[in-house]
Amino acid sequence: MTDVSRKTQESLQDTLLQVQRLLARHKLVEGMVHRQDMPRHDLVEKLVHKQHLAELSVKLERLHAADIAKILEALPQPERLTVWELVRAERDGDILLEVSDAVRESLLEHMDSHEIVAAAGRLDADELADLAPDLPEHVLSEVMSGLGEDERAQVQSALSYRENEVGSLMDFDMVTIRADVTLATVLRYLRRFQNLPKNTDKLFVVDRNRSLKGVLSLKRLILNAPQRSVGEVMAREMVTFSADDHVDDAANAFERYDLVSAPVLDSNQRVIGRLTVDDMVDVIRDESDALTLAGLMKGEDLFSSIWKSAKNRGPWLALNICTAFLASRVIGAFEATIAHLVALATLMPIVSGIGGNTGTQTMTLIIRGIALGQITGANAKRLILKELGIALLNGLLWGSVLGLIAWLLYHQVPLGLVMMSAMVLNLQVAALVGILVPLTMQRLGRDPAYGSSVLLTASTDSMGFFIFLGLATIFLT
Amino acid sequence: MTDVSRKTQESLQDTLLQVQRLLARHKLVEGMVHRQDMPRHDLVEKLVHKQHLAELSVKLERLHAADIAKILEALPQPERLTVWELVRAERDGDILLEVSDAVRESLLEHMDSHEIVAAAGRLDADELADLAPDLPEHVLSEVMSGLGEDERAQVQSALSYRENEVGSLMDFDMVTIRADVTLATVLRYLRRFQNLPKNTDKLFVVDRNRSLKGVLSLKRLILNAPQRSVGEVMAREMVTFSADDHVDDAANAFERYDLVSAPVLDSNQRVIGRLTVDDMVDVIRDESDALTLAGLMKGEDLFSSIWKSAKNRGPWLALNICTAFLASRVIGAFEATIAHLVALATLMPIVSGIGGNTGTQTMTLIIRGIALGQITGANAKRLILKELGIALLNGLLWGSVLGLIAWLLYHQVPLGLVMMSAMVLNLQVAALVGILVPLTMQRLGRDPAYGSSVLLTASTDSMGFFIFLGLATIFLT
Repeated sequence: MTDVSRKTQESLQDTLLQVQRLLARHKLVEGMVHRQDMPRHDLVEKLVHKQHLAELSVKLERLHAADIAKILEALPQPERLTVWELVRAERDGDILLEVSDAVRESLLEHMDSHEIVAAAGRLDADELADLAPDLPEHVLSEVMSGLGEDERAQVQSALSYRENEVGSLMDFDMVTIRADVTLATVLRYLRRFQNLPKNTDKLFVVDRNRSLKGVLSLKRLILNAPQRSVGEVMAREMVTFSADDHVDDAANAFERYDLVSAPVLDSNQRVIGRLTVDDMVDVIRDESDALTLAGLMKGEDLFSSIWKSAKNRGPWLALNICTAFLASRVIGAFEATIAHLVALATLMPIVSGIGGNTGTQTMTLIIRGIALGQITGANAKRLILKELGIALLNGLLWGSVLGLIAWLLYHQVPLGLVMMSAMVLNLQVAALVGILVPLTMQRLGRDPAYGSSVLLTASTDSMGFFIFLGLATIFLT
Repeated sequence: MTDVSRKTQESLQDTLLQVQRLLARHKLVEGMVHRQDMPRHDLVEKLVHKQHLAELSVKLERLHAADIAKILEALPQPERLTVWELVRAERDGDILLEVSDAVRESLLEHMDSHEIVAAAGRLDADELADLAPDLPEHVLSEVMSGLGEDERAQVQSALSYRENEVGSLMDFDMVTIRADVTLATVLRYLRRFQNLPKNTDKLFVVDRNRSLKGVLSLKRLILNAPQRSVGEVMAREMVTFSADDHVDDAANAFERYDLVSAPVLDSNQRVIGRLTVDDMVDVIRDESDALTLAGLMKGEDLFSSIWKSAKNRGPWLALNICTAFLASRVIGAFEATIAHLVALATLMPIVSGIGGNTGTQTMTLIIRGIALGQITGANAKRLILKELGIALLNGLLWGSVLGLIAWLLYHQVPLGLVMMSAMVLNLQVAALVGILVPLTMQRLGRDPAYGSSVLLTASTDSMGFFIFLGLATIFLT
């Protein structure tokens, strides 16, 4: 191949558009075949139909597995299955690893057992472990029985860790060497390999018990004179992980120390696996709080059925309706006050809404601070004071503005004062809740992003209405 | 050093706690020195005081620059400056590169010109370009005048790109080789280097015009027989970037193809720089939409002054207050209806609130889809239909539930029906706005996450009140 430069994102979008165009033409022809009954056209149409698919198939053949995965994710279900069937069976496993969980499920649903067994059989132990939770049980046991003893043990070991433990992302493929040989020996040893495991930027130096003594980067292997020994040249200080470390912590460490790969050790300092930067990038991508903050159970397939999507978003929505109902009952308790002064109904959503917004700003910063490990008991108090200070400033500023507007609109000074006071108080509530909810979640060992948003708006809505209408009841009636 | 395993996150948290403890003790002593005037104690106190700082200084000496950066970020301003002054001047530059923009500003404020010049003078061209926007002008020009011609040109080239262009993250340090030499020659050539540029996993093969012909991974360099030529062994198909590519697209490509480094080419296929995975990890981390969705202008220093934070969050808050006021005026237009039936004031926040929540769910998925390049003109229509379908399902389901509750609470069947219809209609509005706002933002070439949230709640609030109170005015009065 002489095609040196392969443009990336641009070409993926282009390729996606080309695939969509071919699929559209294919569908058109299919529609025509179905509609017309004249037999003499049949053959021609079928040929054209086949030709589009063949063109598509050639196009897919040239694409990287990750690109095919992205294209599958961007297609609605029927087109997705058409493309999926065109992919060569040998590539099924790699592509299944690349697609999102939701899309993987939709693809596996349409494969029969022997296809899945064939696809899974081509994977490494750690890859198989990634796929395992989505596989039907009889398929998994059939694949497992086809493995060698070592590999089976590796899959079982990987499956024994929880999803947020380093062990679940561990790679078993790695190169280990001894400290007492020369670099020349290492180079000769490596030349016997067809290939090195992905993202190999260093070799692990172990003793006869597989206990880690140091790491030899390919860089040092190349830069140093071949007659020097591994022990002289290797780095003895390095970043290592335990299998039960949290994956977020590992990802933070990869980011902080610019790592490409790092060894995973057991309690006896023995190397049991390896972490690589590509998996850590995925962790960082998935860490993005936006999805959980918005109340989605998990990343959703863009084209999953309406039912599935509703199920994914349902629990959160139900919870939201409960808290909205609660806030509504708070207002209900003040109906007499509102009947007395309808302006209150007009102004109250401002107090609750601004509370929700400022609280979300505070909470987002705190969640980010927690994720980056920047918040300890020692500085939490200081943060609370700072956020309360900002809330006071904003409350006084915007409370005055809105109080003034309320006064101008309804010609009642007390109404303006109630508006201002309610703003000041509710922003204090918002700041406190915005800090305390994620901190409490963290202390309880839970993901601070998860559910915080619902608790926050529940508080700022209910308290906003309560403070505003309560003050109004005391001072205006 | 024999300390093989350096635990990461755990030790960072531990170290942070230790630093905080030393700082607290240091402050305590400082306070005592100030309070008591007996001169004979003075010397002793000063010694103790100095001892804590010395201990801290030794601790800092042992830490990675990235760890010191994290510790600085987690400390309030006075403690941060104490630690910053203890750091050896030679490390200032590296640490300034690692801290967040907001913290960097706070540190630079407290350095004098010659300290900044010294720190900046130790950096590479691309690192200097990263720092440049934060440096006082006379400092930058002094540093620039101290550079060689090549390096000055590199800094100027890096500064000429916008923040979201690949050129701004480009690294100028790289190893290029010719295709017609043998691997043995390459190995001999490399051994003359003291070190290779960070994240060097491949060498760039160029002709005499610096035009890229292929890449030679260290892996292939090591695995192949030394007498083979570079041209035989190198990969000709590879991922390359242009300096004006969008950094998000580059980060997506690094993620998709599991890259560690990749060449940046000009329009004549000449290598002008290099992208590395560590910068891409930062891009992915910063891409997280949570901050912009929450209405923060940029990542904020946890311990920035109340004024600075208020300024950072202010513009969004002001916009929110405008939209909240608008929604409030919509309610104001229906005051007569509310005076007639106060229950409406109680129920209306439910309609607007649920609309906001479901709309945010839709919008978050769409923004993510756009970020991953999964949404094209061809599938947008389908997405709209799907989201409207889910909204209809949820509207009918939860509208019925809430309608029933409204009926039970207020014994009015028409009120229940108005509640249900308003829920159905407002969820349709929410779904439409949730899709169309980010798609329109994207078509206008803007960041779809930015400002979408405000537009969404503005619509769901105002429309929610309008639909609910409008229906009530027609059918209940």
